Amino acid sequence: MFSGAQISLYPMSSDFIWIITDALSALDPYREHLRIETDDISTLIVGPPEVVFAAMRDLYSVAGKGGVHCVLSATISRGCPGEPDDAICNAPGFDGPEEPLAERMETALAALKDAPHKGVDASAQFSLYVLGSNHHMDEIYGCIDFVKQSGAFDRAKNFCTRLKGDAGLVFATLEQAFCAFGSKQGHVTIDLTVSANSPSVTA
Amino acid sequence: MFSGAQISLYPMSSDFIWIITDALSALDPYREHLRIETDDISTLIVGPPEVVFAAMRDLYSVAGKGGVHCVLSATISRGCPGEPDDAICNAPGFDGPEEPLAERMETALAALKDAPHKGVDASAQFSLYVLGSNHHMDEIYGCIDFVKQSGAFDRAKNFCTRLKGDAGLVFATLEQAFCAFGSKQGHVTIDLTVSANSPSVTA
Repeated sequence: MFSGAQISLYPMSSDFIWIITDALSALDPYREHLRIETDDISTLIVGPPEVVFAAMRDLYSVAGKGGVHCVLSATISRGCPGEPDDAICNAPGFDGPEEPLAERMETALAALKDAPHKGVDASAQFSLYVLGSNHHMDEIYGCIDFVKQSGAFDRAKNFCTRLKGDAGLVFATLEQAFCAFGSKQGHVTIDLTVSANSPSVTA
Repeated sequence: MFSGAQISLYPMSSDFIWIITDALSALDPYREHLRIETDDISTLIVGPPEVVFAAMRDLYSVAGKGGVHCVLSATISRGCPGEPDDAICNAPGFDGPEEPLAERMETALAALKDAPHKGVDASAQFSLYVLGSNHHMDEIYGCIDFVKQSGAFDRAKNFCTRLKGDAGLVFATLEQAFCAFGSKQGHVTIDLTVSANSPSVTA
Protein backbone atom coordinates (compact mmCIF):
# COMPACT_ATOMS: atom_id res chain seq x y z
CA MET A 1 0.00 0.00 0.00
CA PHE A 2 1.42 3.36 -1.06
CA SER A 3 1.18 5.96 1.71
CA GLY A 4 2.58 9.37 2.47
CA ALA A 5 1.88 13.07 2.51
CA GLN A 6 2.59 16.36 0.83
CA ILE A 7 3.40 18.70 3.72
CA SER A 8 4.08 22.43 3.98
CA LEU A 9 5.11 24.57 6.93
CA TYR A 10 4.04 28.22 6.96
CA PRO A 11 5.71 30.40 9.62
CA MET A 12 3.98 33.80 9.70
CA SER A 13 7.31 35.60 10.07
CA SER A 14 9.76 37.43 7.85
CA ASP A 15 12.32 34.87 9.14
CA PHE A 16 10.29 32.06 7.60
CA ILE A 17 13.20 30.56 5.65
CA TRP A 18 15.31 30.06 8.79
CA ILE A 19 12.39 28.81 10.87
CA ILE A 20 11.62 26.18 8.21
CA THR A 21 15.27 25.21 7.80
CA ASP A 22 15.71 24.80 11.56
CA ALA A 23 12.51 22.78 11.94
CA LEU A 24 13.55 20.34 9.21
CA SER A 25 16.08 18.81 11.63
CA ALA A 26 13.04 17.25 13.31
CA LEU A 27 12.80 14.91 10.31
CA ASP A 28 16.33 13.52 10.81
CA PRO A 29 15.37 10.49 12.94
CA TYR A 30 12.87 9.46 10.27
CA ARG A 31 14.86 10.05 7.09
CA GLU A 32 15.98 6.44 6.61
CA HIS A 33 12.35 5.29 6.76
CA LEU A 34 10.99 7.91 4.36
CA ARG A 35 11.42 8.98 0.76
CA ILE A 36 11.57 12.78 0.88
CA GLU A 37 11.28 15.18 -2.09
CA THR A 38 10.93 18.97 -1.80
CA ASP A 39 9.81 21.62 -4.27
CA ASP A 40 8.64 25.22 -3.84
CA ILE A 41 5.09 24.27 -2.76
CA SER A 42 5.49 21.24 -0.50
CA THR A 43 7.63 18.36 0.71
CA LEU A 44 6.63 14.82 -0.17
CA ILE A 45 7.19 12.21 2.54
CA VAL A 46 6.49 8.62 1.52
CA GLY A 47 6.53 5.86 4.12
CA PRO A 48 4.32 3.85 6.48
CA PRO A 49 1.63 5.85 8.32
CA GLU A 50 3.22 5.59 11.78
CA VAL A 51 6.42 7.17 10.48
CA VAL A 52 4.62 9.79 8.38
CA PHE A 53 2.51 10.97 11.35
CA ALA A 54 5.44 10.94 13.80
CA ALA A 55 7.52 12.98 11.34
CA MET A 56 4.72 15.55 10.85
CA ARG A 57 4.16 15.74 14.61
CA ASP A 58 7.82 16.40 15.38
CA LEU A 59 8.21 18.91 12.53
CA TYR A 60 5.16 20.80 13.80
CA SER A 61 6.30 20.60 17.43
CA VAL A 62 9.78 21.99 16.77
CA ALA A 63 8.36 24.84 14.66
CA GLY A 64 5.60 25.58 17.19
CA LYS A 65 7.98 25.68 20.17
CA GLY A 66 9.59 28.83 18.79
CA GLY A 67 6.48 30.85 19.65
CA VAL A 68 5.93 32.16 16.12
CA HIS A 69 2.49 31.65 14.55
CA CYS A 70 3.10 28.61 12.29
CA VAL A 71 0.79 26.39 10.29
CA LEU A 72 1.47 22.86 9.06
CA SER A 73 -0.71 21.93 6.08
CA ALA A 74 -0.79 18.39 4.71
CA THR A 75 -2.43 16.24 2.08
CA ILE A 76 -2.14 12.69 3.44
CA SER A 77 -3.00 9.62 1.36
CA ARG A 78 -2.97 5.83 1.46
CA GLY A 79 -4.00 3.26 -1.10
CA CYS A 80 -4.38 5.66 -4.04
CA PRO A 81 -4.99 3.43 -7.09
CA GLY A 82 -2.97 5.83 -9.25
CA GLU A 83 0.23 5.49 -7.21
CA PRO A 84 2.81 2.73 -7.69
CA ASP A 85 3.57 0.49 -4.72
CA ASP A 86 6.74 1.27 -2.77
CA ALA A 87 8.61 -1.09 -0.44
CA ILE A 88 9.34 1.78 1.97
CA CYS A 89 5.61 1.95 2.79
CA ASN A 90 5.52 -1.57 4.26
CA ALA A 91 2.72 -1.56 6.86
CA PRO A 92 1.73 -5.12 7.91
CA GLY A 93 -1.20 -3.74 9.94
CA PHE A 94 -3.06 -3.24 6.68
CA ASP A 95 -2.92 -6.94 5.74
CA GLY A 96 -5.41 -9.53 6.94
CA PRO A 97 -9.17 -9.50 7.32
CA GLU A 98 -11.26 -6.40 7.95
CA GLU A 99 -12.51 -5.90 11.51
CA PRO A 100 -16.03 -4.50 12.16
CA LEU A 101 -16.26 -0.72 12.55
CA ALA A 102 -17.00 -0.87 16.31
CA GLU A 103 -13.92 -3.03 16.92
CA ARG A 104 -11.69 -0.68 14.93
CA MET A 105 -12.96 2.25 17.01
CA GLU A 106 -12.01 0.47 20.23
CA THR A 107 -8.54 -0.39 18.94
CA ALA A 108 -8.02 3.20 17.78
CA LEU A 109 -9.04 4.60 21.19
CA ALA A 110 -6.71 2.17 22.98
CA ALA A 111 -3.80 3.24 20.77
CA LEU A 112 -4.13 6.85 21.95
CA LYS A 113 -2.85 5.83 25.41
CA ASP A 114 0.63 5.52 23.88
CA ALA A 115 0.66 9.08 22.52
CA PRO A 116 3.75 10.95 23.72
CA HIS A 117 3.43 14.37 25.38
CA LYS A 118 5.16 16.97 23.18
CA GLY A 119 4.59 20.11 25.28
CA VAL A 120 3.24 22.11 22.33
CA ASP A 121 -0.42 22.98 21.82
CA ALA A 122 -1.99 22.11 18.50
CA SER A 123 -5.19 23.55 17.03
CA ALA A 124 -6.09 21.39 14.07
CA GLN A 125 -8.84 20.81 11.58
CA PHE A 126 -9.11 17.89 9.22
CA SER A 127 -11.35 16.26 6.64
CA LEU A 128 -11.22 12.50 6.16
CA TYR A 129 -12.11 11.21 2.70
CA VAL A 130 -12.89 7.53 2.09
CA LEU A 131 -12.86 6.99 -1.67
CA GLY A 132 -14.19 4.32 -3.99
CA SER A 133 -16.89 3.15 -1.61
CA ASN A 134 -20.63 3.69 -1.57
CA HIS A 135 -20.57 3.45 2.22
CA HIS A 136 -18.04 6.20 2.76
CA MET A 137 -20.30 8.21 5.08
CA ASP A 138 -20.61 5.24 7.51
CA GLU A 139 -16.84 5.27 7.89
CA ILE A 140 -16.80 9.07 8.24
CA TYR A 141 -19.45 8.99 10.97
CA GLY A 142 -17.56 6.15 12.68
CA CYS A 143 -14.44 8.28 12.60
CA ILE A 144 -16.31 11.28 14.04
CA ASP A 145 -17.56 9.07 16.90
CA PHE A 146 -13.98 7.98 17.56
CA VAL A 147 -12.71 11.56 17.49
CA LYS A 148 -15.38 12.69 19.96
CA GLN A 149 -14.04 10.13 22.45
CA SER A 150 -10.35 10.82 21.74
CA GLY A 151 -9.84 13.64 24.24
CA ALA A 152 -8.70 15.88 21.36
CA PHE A 153 -12.15 16.77 19.96
CA ASP A 154 -12.83 20.49 19.81
CA ARG A 155 -15.86 20.99 17.56
CA ALA A 156 -17.41 20.25 14.19
CA LYS A 157 -17.20 22.83 11.42
CA ASN A 158 -18.57 22.81 7.90
CA PHE A 159 -16.41 20.44 5.80
CA CYS A 160 -14.07 19.48 8.66
CA THR A 161 -13.62 18.65 12.34
CA ARG A 162 -11.53 20.62 14.81
CA LEU A 163 -9.12 19.04 17.28
CA LYS A 164 -7.13 20.65 20.06
CA GLY A 165 -4.70 19.56 22.68
CA ASP A 166 -1.08 18.56 23.07
CA ALA A 167 0.51 17.87 19.70
CA GLY A 168 1.23 14.29 20.80
CA LEU A 169 -2.45 13.47 21.30
CA VAL A 170 -3.66 15.48 18.30
CA PHE A 171 -1.33 13.72 15.84
CA ALA A 172 -2.02 10.31 17.41
CA THR A 173 -5.75 10.95 16.93
CA LEU A 174 -5.14 11.94 13.31
CA GLU A 175 -3.05 8.80 12.70
CA GLN A 176 -5.81 6.57 14.07
CA ALA A 177 -8.47 8.42 12.05
CA PHE A 178 -6.38 7.81 8.93
CA CYS A 179 -5.55 4.14 9.61
CA ALA A 180 -8.67 2.74 11.30
CA PHE A 181 -11.41 4.03 8.97
CA GLY A 182 -12.01 3.13 5.36
CA SER A 183 -11.12 -0.36 4.15
CA LYS A 184 -7.60 -1.65 4.77
CA GLN A 185 -6.59 -1.62 1.12
CA GLY A 186 -8.89 1.27 0.21
CA HIS A 187 -8.05 4.80 -0.86
CA VAL A 188 -8.22 7.14 2.15
CA THR A 189 -7.01 10.73 2.38
CA ILE A 190 -6.86 13.50 4.96
CA ASP A 191 -6.79 17.24 4.25
CA LEU A 192 -5.09 18.65 7.37
CA THR A 193 -4.32 22.07 8.87
CA VAL A 194 -2.53 22.41 12.24
CA SER A 195 -1.98 25.84 13.74
CA ALA A 196 0.38 26.97 16.53
CA ASN A 197 0.50 30.28 18.38
CA SER A 198 -2.28 32.03 16.47
CA PRO A 199 -2.86 35.56 17.78
CA SER A 200 -6.58 35.17 17.11
CA VAL A 201 -7.24 32.00 19.11
CA THR A 202 -10.68 32.06 20.66
CA ALA A 203 -11.23 30.50 24.05
CA MET B 1 -26.53 21.48 -3.19
CA PHE B 2 -24.43 22.79 -0.30
CA SER B 3 -21.10 24.21 -1.53
CA GLY B 4 -18.32 26.31 -0.16
CA ALA B 5 -14.81 26.29 1.23
CA GLN B 6 -12.72 26.66 4.33
CA ILE B 7 -9.93 29.04 3.27
CA SER B 8 -6.78 30.35 4.95
CA LEU B 9 -4.23 32.90 3.82
CA TYR B 10 -0.66 32.54 5.07
CA PRO B 11 1.63 35.54 4.43
CA MET B 12 5.22 34.56 5.28
CA SER B 13 5.83 37.94 6.91
CA SER B 14 5.87 39.40 10.41
CA ASP B 15 3.22 41.83 9.07
CA PHE B 16 0.88 38.92 8.39
CA ILE B 17 -2.07 40.39 10.31
CA TRP B 18 -2.12 43.57 8.21
CA ILE B 19 -1.56 41.73 4.95
CA ILE B 20 -4.52 39.46 5.69
CA THR B 21 -6.72 42.35 6.85
CA ASP B 22 -5.93 44.35 3.71
CA ALA B 23 -6.54 41.39 1.40
CA LEU B 24 -9.96 40.70 2.91
CA SER B 25 -11.31 43.78 1.09
CA ALA B 26 -11.10 41.60 -2.04
CA LEU B 27 -14.10 39.70 -0.69
CA ASP B 28 -16.32 42.82 -0.51
CA PRO B 29 -17.94 42.44 -3.96
CA TYR B 30 -18.95 38.88 -3.05
CA ARG B 31 -20.16 39.31 0.52
CA GLU B 32 -23.86 39.52 -0.31
CA HIS B 33 -23.64 36.21 -2.20
CA LEU B 34 -21.71 34.34 0.49
CA ARG B 35 -22.13 33.27 4.09
CA ILE B 36 -18.80 34.05 5.76
CA GLU B 37 -17.59 32.86 9.18
CA THR B 38 -14.06 33.25 10.52
CA ASP B 39 -12.19 31.57 13.35
CA ASP B 40 -8.50 31.31 14.22
CA ILE B 41 -7.81 28.51 11.70
CA SER B 42 -9.83 29.38 8.61
CA THR B 43 -12.65 31.36 7.05
CA LEU B 44 -15.74 29.54 5.84
CA ILE B 45 -17.29 30.85 2.64
CA VAL B 46 -20.57 29.23 1.63
CA GLY B 47 -22.14 29.98 -1.75
CA PRO B 48 -22.37 28.80 -5.35
CA PRO B 49 -19.11 27.55 -6.89
CA GLU B 50 -18.69 30.46 -9.33
CA VAL B 51 -18.78 32.95 -6.44
CA VAL B 52 -16.59 30.81 -4.16
CA PHE B 53 -13.85 30.47 -6.80
CA ALA B 54 -14.00 34.15 -7.84
CA ALA B 55 -13.72 35.20 -4.18
CA MET B 56 -10.71 32.91 -3.59
CA ARG B 57 -9.07 34.13 -6.81
CA ASP B 58 -9.44 37.80 -5.89
CA LEU B 59 -8.32 37.26 -2.29
CA TYR B 60 -5.23 35.42 -3.54
CA SER B 61 -4.55 38.03 -6.22
CA VAL B 62 -4.68 41.02 -3.87
CA ALA B 63 -2.43 39.26 -1.34
CA GLY B 64 -0.01 38.07 -4.05
CA LYS B 65 0.33 41.51 -5.65
CA GLY B 66 2.10 42.81 -2.55
CA GLY B 67 5.19 40.77 -3.41
CA VAL B 68 5.33 38.89 -0.09
CA HIS B 69 5.45 35.09 -0.19
CA CYS B 70 1.81 34.15 0.50
CA VAL B 71 -0.07 30.88 0.39
CA LEU B 72 -3.82 30.37 0.05
CA SER B 73 -4.94 26.99 1.36
CA ALA B 74 -8.49 25.76 0.88
CA THR B 75 -10.76 22.79 1.54
CA ILE B 76 -13.51 23.09 -1.08
CA SER B 77 -16.63 20.93 -1.03
CA ARG B 78 -19.94 20.42 -2.79
CA GLY B 79 -22.76 17.96 -2.18
CA CYS B 80 -21.52 16.69 1.20
CA PRO B 81 -24.33 14.44 2.52
CA GLY B 82 -23.62 15.63 6.07
CA GLU B 83 -24.27 19.32 5.32
CA PRO B 84 -27.72 20.95 5.35
CA ASP B 85 -28.92 22.60 2.15
CA ASP B 86 -28.60 26.39 1.97
CA ALA B 87 -30.50 28.72 -0.37
CA ILE B 88 -27.38 30.89 -0.83
CA CYS B 89 -25.74 27.98 -2.71
CA ASN B 90 -28.31 28.01 -5.53
CA ALA B 91 -26.50 26.69 -8.62
CA PRO B 92 -28.93 25.74 -11.41
CA GLY B 93 -26.08 24.28 -13.48
CA PHE B 94 -26.13 21.26 -11.19
CA ASP B 95 -29.76 20.39 -12.02
CA GLY B 96 -30.81 18.35 -15.04
CA PRO B 97 -29.43 15.21 -16.63
CA GLU B 98 -25.78 14.14 -16.47
CA GLU B 99 -23.71 14.70 -19.63
CA PRO B 100 -21.11 12.11 -20.72
CA LEU B 101 -17.56 12.67 -19.44
CA ALA B 102 -16.18 13.69 -22.86
CA GLU B 103 -18.87 16.32 -23.29
CA ARG B 104 -18.22 17.76 -19.82
CA MET B 105 -14.52 18.02 -20.66
CA GLU B 106 -15.27 20.04 -23.81
CA THR B 107 -17.63 22.38 -21.94
CA ALA B 108 -15.05 22.87 -19.19
CA LEU B 109 -12.31 23.71 -21.72
CA ALA B 110 -14.60 26.18 -23.50
CA ALA B 111 -15.37 27.93 -20.20
CA LEU B 112 -11.67 28.73 -19.68
CA LYS B 113 -11.80 31.23 -22.56
CA ASP B 114 -13.75 33.58 -20.26
CA ALA B 115 -11.08 33.54 -17.52
CA PRO B 116 -10.04 37.10 -16.61
CA HIS B 117 -6.37 38.10 -16.56
CA LYS B 118 -5.40 39.03 -13.00
CA GLY B 119 -1.75 39.97 -13.52
CA VAL B 120 -0.53 37.76 -10.65
CA ASP B 121 1.27 34.44 -11.08
CA ALA B 122 -0.14 31.44 -9.25
CA SER B 123 1.69 28.19 -8.49
CA ALA B 124 -0.92 25.73 -7.32
CA GLN B 125 -1.39 22.11 -6.46
CA PHE B 126 -4.68 20.36 -5.90
CA SER B 127 -6.25 16.99 -5.26
CA LEU B 128 -9.76 16.29 -6.52
CA TYR B 129 -11.79 13.77 -4.53
CA VAL B 130 -14.97 12.23 -5.94
CA LEU B 131 -16.75 10.49 -3.07
CA GLY B 132 -19.45 7.87 -2.79
CA SER B 133 -18.78 6.37 -6.22
CA ASN B 134 -17.08 3.18 -7.29
CA HIS B 135 -16.01 4.91 -10.51
CA HIS B 136 -14.23 7.79 -8.86
CA MET B 137 -10.94 7.15 -10.64
CA ASP B 138 -12.63 7.51 -14.08
CA GLU B 139 -13.70 11.00 -13.10
CA ILE B 140 -10.25 11.78 -11.67
CA TYR B 141 -8.52 10.65 -14.87
CA GLY B 142 -11.07 12.66 -16.91
CA CYS B 143 -10.22 15.69 -14.82
CA ILE B 144 -6.49 15.15 -15.30
CA ASP B 145 -7.05 14.99 -19.09
CA PHE B 146 -8.95 18.26 -18.91
CA VAL B 147 -6.24 19.92 -16.80
CA LYS B 148 -3.53 18.84 -19.25
CA GLN B 149 -5.36 20.74 -21.99
CA SER B 150 -6.21 23.78 -19.84
CA GLY B 151 -3.04 25.78 -20.48
CA ALA B 152 -2.43 25.85 -16.70
CA PHE B 153 -0.99 22.32 -16.32
CA ASP B 154 2.45 22.24 -14.75
CA ARG B 155 3.12 18.64 -13.71
CA ALA B 156 1.82 15.65 -11.79
CA LYS B 157 3.09 14.98 -8.28
CA ASN B 158 2.31 12.21 -5.84
CA PHE B 159 -1.20 12.79 -4.43
CA CYS B 160 -1.84 15.98 -6.42
CA THR B 161 -1.46 17.90 -9.68
CA ARG B 162 0.45 21.16 -10.12
CA LEU B 163 -0.90 24.14 -12.06
CA LYS B 164 0.82 27.39 -12.94
CA GLY B 165 -0.04 30.56 -14.80
CA ASP B 166 -1.98 33.74 -14.31
CA ALA B 167 -4.28 33.51 -11.28
CA GLY B 168 -7.28 34.08 -13.57
CA LEU B 169 -6.61 30.94 -15.61
CA VAL B 170 -5.48 28.86 -12.63
CA PHE B 171 -8.63 29.53 -10.59
CA ALA B 172 -10.87 29.09 -13.66
CA THR B 173 -9.25 25.70 -14.23
CA LEU B 174 -9.81 24.76 -10.59
CA GLU B 175 -13.47 25.85 -10.78
CA GLN B 176 -14.06 23.68 -13.85
CA ALA B 177 -12.25 20.73 -12.26
CA PHE B 178 -14.55 21.07 -9.25
CA CYS B 179 -17.81 21.54 -11.17
CA ALA B 180 -17.45 19.33 -14.26
CA PHE B 181 -16.21 16.09 -12.69
CA GLY B 182 -18.04 13.78 -10.33
CA SER B 183 -21.81 13.50 -10.58
CA LYS B 184 -23.90 16.66 -10.46
CA GLN B 185 -25.44 15.92 -7.09
CA GLY B 186 -22.45 13.95 -5.84
CA HIS B 187 -19.98 14.75 -3.08
CA VAL B 188 -16.84 16.31 -4.59
CA THR B 189 -13.99 18.04 -2.74
CA ILE B 190 -10.72 19.75 -3.59
CA ASP B 191 -7.70 20.08 -1.31
CA LEU B 192 -5.94 23.20 -2.67
CA THR B 193 -2.69 25.08 -2.12
CA VAL B 194 -1.82 28.21 -4.14
CA SER B 195 1.54 29.90 -3.65
CA ALA B 196 2.70 33.40 -4.65
CA ASN B 197 6.22 34.85 -4.65
CA SER B 198 8.01 31.81 -3.24
CA PRO B 199 11.75 32.43 -2.94
CA SER B 200 12.41 28.80 -3.85
CA VAL B 201 10.51 28.60 -7.15
CA THR B 202 12.26 26.27 -9.54
CA ALA B 203 12.22 27.00 -13.25
